[in-house]
Amino acid sequence: MIDTIKWIDGAGTAKAMILDQTRLPHDISYIECTDYRQVVDCIKYLAIRGAPAIGIAAAMGIALAADAISAADAMEFSAKLRPAIDALLNSRPTAVNIQWAAERIERLIENNKTMPISALKEMIAKEGVLILNEDIEINKAIGRYGAEFIKDGDTVLTHCNAGALATGGYGTATAPIRMAIEQGKRISVIADETRPILQGARLTAWELMQDNIPVTLIPDNAAGELMRRGEIDLCIVGTDRTVRNGDVANKIGTYSVAVLAKENNIPFYVAAPLSSIDFTLSSGSEIPIEERPSHEVTNVFGRCEIAPKGVAVRNIAFDVTPAKYITLILTEKGAFKPEAIHTLDPKGNK
Amino acid sequence: MIDTIKWIDGAGTAKAMILDQTRLPHDISYIECTDYRQVVDCIKYLAIRGAPAIGIAAAMGIALAADAISAADAMEFSAKLRPAIDALLNSRPTAVNIQWAAERIERLIENNKTMPISALKEMIAKEGVLILNEDIEINKAIGRYGAEFIKDGDTVLTHCNAGALATGGYGTATAPIRMAIEQGKRISVIADETRPILQGARLTAWELMQDNIPVTLIPDNAAGELMRRGEIDLCIVGTDRTVRNGDVANKIGTYSVAVLAKENNIPFYVAAPLSSIDFTLSSGSEIPIEERPSHEVTNVFGRCEIAPKGVAVRNIAFDVTPAKYITLILTEKGAFKPEAIHTLDPKGNK
Repeated sequence: MIDTIKWIDGAGTAKAMILDQTRLPHDISYIECTDYRQVVDCIKYLAIRGAPAIGIAAAMGIALAADAISAADAMEFSAKLRPAIDALLNSRPTAVNIQWAAERIERLIENNKTMPISALKEMIAKEGVLILNEDIEINKAIGRYGAEFIKDGDTVLTHCNAGALATGGYGTATAPIRMAIEQGKRISVIADETRPILQGARLTAWELMQDNIPVTLIPDNAAGELMRRGEIDLCIVGTDRTVRNGDVANKIGTYSVAVLAKENNIPFYVAAPLSSIDFTLSSGSEIPIEERPSHEVTNVFGRCEIAPKGVAVRNIAFDVTPAKYITLILTEKGAFKPEAIHTLDPKGNK
Repeated sequence: MIDTIKWIDGAGTAKAMILDQTRLPHDISYIECTDYRQVVDCIKYLAIRGAPAIGIAAAMGIALAADAISAADAMEFSAKLRPAIDALLNSRPTAVNIQWAAERIERLIENNKTMPISALKEMIAKEGVLILNEDIEINKAIGRYGAEFIKDGDTVLTHCNAGALATGGYGTATAPIRMAIEQGKRISVIADETRPILQGARLTAWELMQDNIPVTLIPDNAAGELMRRGEIDLCIVGTDRTVRNGDVANKIGTYSVAVLAKENNIPFYVAAPLSSIDFTLSSGSEIPIEERPSHEVTNVFGRCEIAPKGVAVRNIAFDVTPAKYITLILTEKGAFKPEAIHTLDPKGNK
């Protein structure tokens, strides 16, 4: 599978290479980021998207910002890093992974504040790469726990892209599918196209085809009818932010899939690395939900106008699926009922 | 409001003028049909769509075919008309209105079989225009019954286009909205864009804007989240075929809207003129459901490829909403619970 994001090392010449996902599936090209502001733009314009992937991108963006700083001590260094961290935090509000990555690097600086600045810069760059590599291992662990719930012959519905392209590799929602296939099970995937940005059509269908995993693309509208006909055995989606009570924010349309699954007695799983769980929020109503520009709805790829000029549009980028619709949340620490997810809080607030 | 379909009279020079809805909202142009085969193509390629509108088109297509026939008597005339009727019946399988219109004209010929052929031709042409004009009155009656369920200030969600463009005029699902507005109520509409053909974005949003009815366009994926947030007061959709037990076939995605509405305690109404009710079928499972070419999903407007080359696609054009999700079916004879719809059977099989 192609790399979603790569780090190219070098003091003063470091680069983050970001696969431009807005051009998939037609063109494979990378954006060379030498400045954190380019990373911010990549996140805003969805060149890179997916909660784990933008966490990695944020860490690498901070590393690029760090690389450019001249500072006498760690305090000055931290202060000069602040604008970059803030810009990255503001680039997309719903996913918590940017915050998670920023906090991880802030802790790293705090724990090493007596080190020389050059060493700090090197540690931060290494941390970005470490987050990327850890992410793949985390996804494989999610895959091992999740694959238990997939039987030979199953058809799995997924929404949006929580695949390799949304992560450092292997994917979150796709991890149980990939693992089940590695275990020799015959699995096929139904990919919701996922309007308005079409991540299912452009990204999920593409990455699964690259890996010869059987995939069928459907308009989002067809998911319900296929469930009603008994043609879907389970659903697995990713998450941009899951909170203490097990409510899940994910791409717009996820809530609809969850309700339809419940109505048709189909299990609905959420693949959630710990980096995407926000233990500071108690319920989904507290999650900030991004609304995006109307042209994403009215104009496909900036080329095809599909609606009357001047029409009013609501383009809500994410929705909240209440815990009651979720069968299990799949993490790198195991599969949990949504009401038990708070027991994973690393700060111990159970 | 612009005409969906018009009849231009004249023995030997008759024409059906069909608004080319594939070009809306960008171009307003008519296809001049002088041969029933052109009408068949218009239906197949969705230049005209919507159950009542294609019923009207079928009647006018039969009139064009009739106009071109030379026959010694009504029996020969009927026999020569058969290929046109069959081609029209096969043009779209799910909507029952083509069948309804064909049977109506067959009855007309049967009841007037002693008339001269030229008189029969004239009667058939008049019947097409009569069906068109009756359709508008039927829709207004649906509107009067339906408007009772819309309160001042309500926001109504609709799916696909069951508006003026899907009918002779005024619309079915839009009729209660239009009537409520005529009664002085302040109503706003949320239009699902309705992938893959985008009838909501291209047609419903456009026709409501033409008439200054407040409308907001959303991706289909956002309907659930708006319901969950309490921003939708009721749903009204059309139907391509409703059957004796109150099950409703309509544009793909209607079932999802109905399930989401039930889950959120939002009333879900179906506007169904009697011409769209098939009293010969006892349940929704008997309705033929059309599947359409994959390029409608992978290629927007034949211009924008949105998916990887060669991807497998399911393009199910309609779904079946079981009666239990439907609050009331709105007809020109009044509002009925779905389980009571069979009492309207004109053949008296109650």
